Amino acid sequence: MYPPVIQKLINLFSKFPTVGPRTAARFIFYLIKLPQEKFDEFLNSITNLRESIKICSFCFNPFDASANSEEKLCPICQNNSRDKTLLCIIEKETDLISIEKTKRYKGLYFILGGTISGLKKNDIEKLKIKELEERIKNPENFDIQGVDLKEIIIAANPTTEGEVTALYIERELKPLGIKITRLGRGLPVGGELEYADEETLGSAFEGRK
Amino acid sequence: MYPPVIQKLINLFSKFPTVGPRTAARFIFYLIKLPQEKFDEFLNSITNLRESIKICSFCFNPFDASANSEEKLCPICQNNSRDKTLLCIIEKETDLISIEKTKRYKGLYFILGGTISGLKKNDIEKLKIKELEERIKNPENFDIQGVDLKEIIIAANPTTEGEVTALYIERELKPLGIKITRLGRGLPVGGELEYADEETLGSAFEGRK
Amino acid sequence: MYPPVIQKLINLFSKFPTVGPRTAARFIFYLIKLPQEKFDEFLNSITNLRESIKICSFCFNPFDASANSEEKLCPICQNNSRDKTLLCIIEKETDLISIEKTKRYKGLYFILGGTISGLKKNDIEKLKIKELEERIKNPENFDIQGVDLKEIIIAANPTTEGEVTALYIERELKPLGIKITRLGRGLPVGGELEYADEETLGSAFEGRK
Amino acid sequence: MYPPVIQKLINLFSKFPTVGPRTAARFIFYLIKLPQEKFDEFLNSITNLRESIKICSFCFNPFDASANSEEKLCPICQNNSRDKTLLCIIEKETDLISIEKTKRYKGLYFILGGTISGLKKNDIEKLKIKELEERIKNPENFDIQGVDLKEIIIAANPTTEGEVTALYIERELKPLGIKITRLGRGLPVGGELEYADEETLGSAFEGRK
Repeated sequence: MYPPVIQKLINLFSKFPTVGPRTAARFIFYLIKLPQEKFDEFLNSITNLRESIKICSFCFNPFDASANSEEKLCPICQNNSRDKTLLCIIEKETDLISIEKTKRYKGLYFILGGTISGLKKNDIEKLKIKELEERIKNPENFDIQGVDLKEIIIAANPTTEGEVTALYIERELKPLGIKITRLGRGLPVGGELEYADEETLGSAFEGRK
Repeated sequence: MYPPVIQKLINLFSKFPTVGPRTAARFIFYLIKLPQEKFDEFLNSITNLRESIKICSFCFNPFDASANSEEKLCPICQNNSRDKTLLCIIEKETDLISIEKTKRYKGLYFILGGTISGLKKNDIEKLKIKELEERIKNPENFDIQGVDLKEIIIAANPTTEGEVTALYIERELKPLGIKITRLGRGLPVGGELEYADEETLGSAFEGRK
Repeated sequence: MYPPVIQKLINLFSKFPTVGPRTAARFIFYLIKLPQEKFDEFLNSITNLRESIKICSFCFNPFDASANSEEKLCPICQNNSRDKTLLCIIEKETDLISIEKTKRYKGLYFILGGTISGLKKNDIEKLKIKELEERIKNPENFDIQGVDLKEIIIAANPTTEGEVTALYIERELKPLGIKITRLGRGLPVGGELEYADEETLGSAFEGRK
Repeated sequence: MYPPVIQKLINLFSKFPTVGPRTAARFIFYLIKLPQEKFDEFLNSITNLRESIKICSFCFNPFDASANSEEKLCPICQNNSRDKTLLCIIEKETDLISIEKTKRYKGLYFILGGTISGLKKNDIEKLKIKELEERIKNPENFDIQGVDLKEIIIAANPTTEGEVTALYIERELKPLGIKITRLGRGLPVGGELEYADEETLGSAFEGRK
C-alpha cells in the first residue's frame, strides 16, 4: 500500500523496541515533514552516535569516547570513588540508569545483555556469562584497577524469566566463592496489601524494619 | 426509567464496595431470574450472617459465634500457638486474610477500620486509635490472655494515604515505648526494575540478601 | 480461611455477574458492618423485589406489578403510543434500558435471554426462540393488543457471538416473511479512524450523510 | 546521566510521535548495538526517504517520485479509474491508508494536516483550509485533470476535536455549493450495546438496514 521506499523504512523501524508498523508509519510521516535543518540535525546525531560511543571493556556500558579515543572504560568504571568490592549484574543498559538514579548503589556494574526464557541454548549463548566470569576472576585484564569483589548482586527482575536467569548465573558463579545476593522483595511504593501476591507480602513481613 | 422497587435496590447495591449503578442493575436482574430455591438460599445466608457473626472484642475481626454465643474472641485471638508478642495493625478485614495466606506471620492483629486521607478530623475519628491504645496498654481487659507485646507492625499500604496513616499511628503509639516496625519495601514478584520508582528500587538494594 | 457462614455467602455472591471471591468478601464485610436499620432496609428491598416484580408475558421485561397484581404486560407493552409495527430483539434487560435512553426507538421489545457462542446446543436451548416465534405469529395470545409487525430489528452486539446469534435468529424468522433489519455500523462517538477496523470504517463510508 | 551525545539523540527521538524519553533511550541502545551493515542500511533508508519522497501537489499525500522526478501527483490522484466527483478530507496521511484498506472508497483525498482543538488561531493556521478551497475551486491549477466534485466527505474523527474541525470546515466550504457529508455513526465491530453512548446507539437505530 505504501511506496517501497516508505515500506522499507517501516520494516526497519518496526524492529526498534516497542515499535509496530502503525507507529513506524507515523515516524516516517514525521520525518518526511520535518524541516530540512531539523532533519539534518537528526541524521548527524545518529551518525555521530556510532562514531563517539564506545562500549566499556569491563562492564559493557556504552560511553562517549569522543574526548579521548584511547579510553577503554566508562566513567563509572573509571571513577575511583566507586566501591570496587561490589558488582551488580543487570540485564540491560537502561537498568543501569534506573539504579544510578536511586543514588543508593555505589559499586560496579556488568551488563549481561539479556535474559533466559526457559533454558533455551539460544538465549544462554546471547548472555555474556563467559565474559562475566573472566571479569570476576581477572578484572585486571580488562583495563580496570583496584577491583576486589566481596559481593555480587544479581539484579534480575523478579519475573519468571528473571528468576531463571538469576538461578542460572548463581549456579555458574558459585564455584568462585564470592558472596552472591539478590534484590530485596517487598511492597513497592503505591502498592496495596490487598493485591500483593503471597510471596511479595511474605517477604514484606520478613523484611520489616 | 426502572420501576421504583428496582431503582430502590439499585441505589442500595450501588453503595456496596466497587459497585456502580450499571452493575447494580445486573445484580437485580440476576436476582429476579434466580430459581426460587436459590433465591431463598441467598436470603437465608444473608439473614444468618448477621445472626452468627460477632466482632472479636480484641482485634475487631468478624468471626462465627454460632457454636458458642458466649465466645468473645475470634479463632486467631483464642489460638494459644499464636505469637502474643507481635501485634499487626491492618486497615481492613480482607488484609487479615491476605496476610494469613502468606503463612509467614504468626502474631495477633488489630483492624483499624480505615485510612486517613490528608489529616481530616472526620477520617481520624473513624479509626479505632483509642481502642488500639487501650488494647495495647491493657489487653487483659479485652477477654484475651497472655499478651506481652514486644513489637507492633504497622501494615499500612505504601500509598500516600497509608503513609499518612502510619505516621499518625506511629506518633500516637511512640509514648508506649514498644518497638514499632513497618513492612519492608522492595520489588514485588512480577515487577520490573525498569518501571520501579527510585524509592522502591533503592529499598530493594538495601534489602538485598 | 473464612468462617463457613461467610464462605457460604462468598460463594453465593461470586455467582453474581462480574463478582469474584475478593469482591464477594468485601460485600460481606460491608454487610456485617451495616447499621441494623440499613441492613433491614436492604433485606426488605430484596424480599419485596421478588414479590412485586413480574415478567411481562409478551416481551419478558420485568415490571412492578404491586399496584395491580392481575397486570400481565410491562408499561412499554401496555403503552398505546408505542409503535406496534416494530419489534426489537435484544439480549438482556439492561439493553432495553440502554435503548430507551436514546429516545430514538418507539417500538416493542423482546428479551431473548442470551447469546449463542459457537453453536452449542446448550446455548441455543437457553434462548427464547420458540417464545419469540409464537409472539410474532400470534401476539394476541400474549395479552397484548394491536400488534401488526412490519419490521423486526435484531439488536445483537456486533461481536462474534452477537453475529452468530443474529444469523441464527434471522434464519429461524425468515419463513415468517417479515422484514428483518440489523443495527447500523459505523464510527462510535469518541472513536478514531486510525483505530477503526476495515469493516467499521467501510460501513461509516457507506452510511455517510 | 547519559553522555551528551546520547542525551541529544534522546531529546530528538522524544519528539517522534508516541515516543517518550524512556523509549527513546531504548531506541538508542538498539542503534548502538546494531551490526554495522544493519546500521548503514537504516541510515541509507532515511537519507533516501527525503530524496525520493515528494508531496502530491493536489492532495498533499507523500509519494515516491524517484522513478520520475517531474511527477507532481501521487498515484491516487494520477489514477484515472478513481471517482473524481468525490473528495474526502482527512486529518493525516495514515488515515488515507486506513480508508484505502477498506476498499470501499474510490474518490480523491485531501490531507488537512491536523485538527482544531477549541478554536485556537494557532491550530486553525496549521490546517490547509486555504489550500483546500483553492483545490476545490480550481483543481486544474494543481496538475490534476478531470476533477468535477459533487460531494465532499469530511472524514473527521467523531471526537470533540474532530467535531469542531468538521463544523469549521463545513462553514468554510458551504458557500461553494457542493454537497457536504460526514461519515456514518453506529456500533463498531466488536462493540457492545451496553457500553455504547446514547448518540452512537441512536445513530445505530436510525442507520439500521
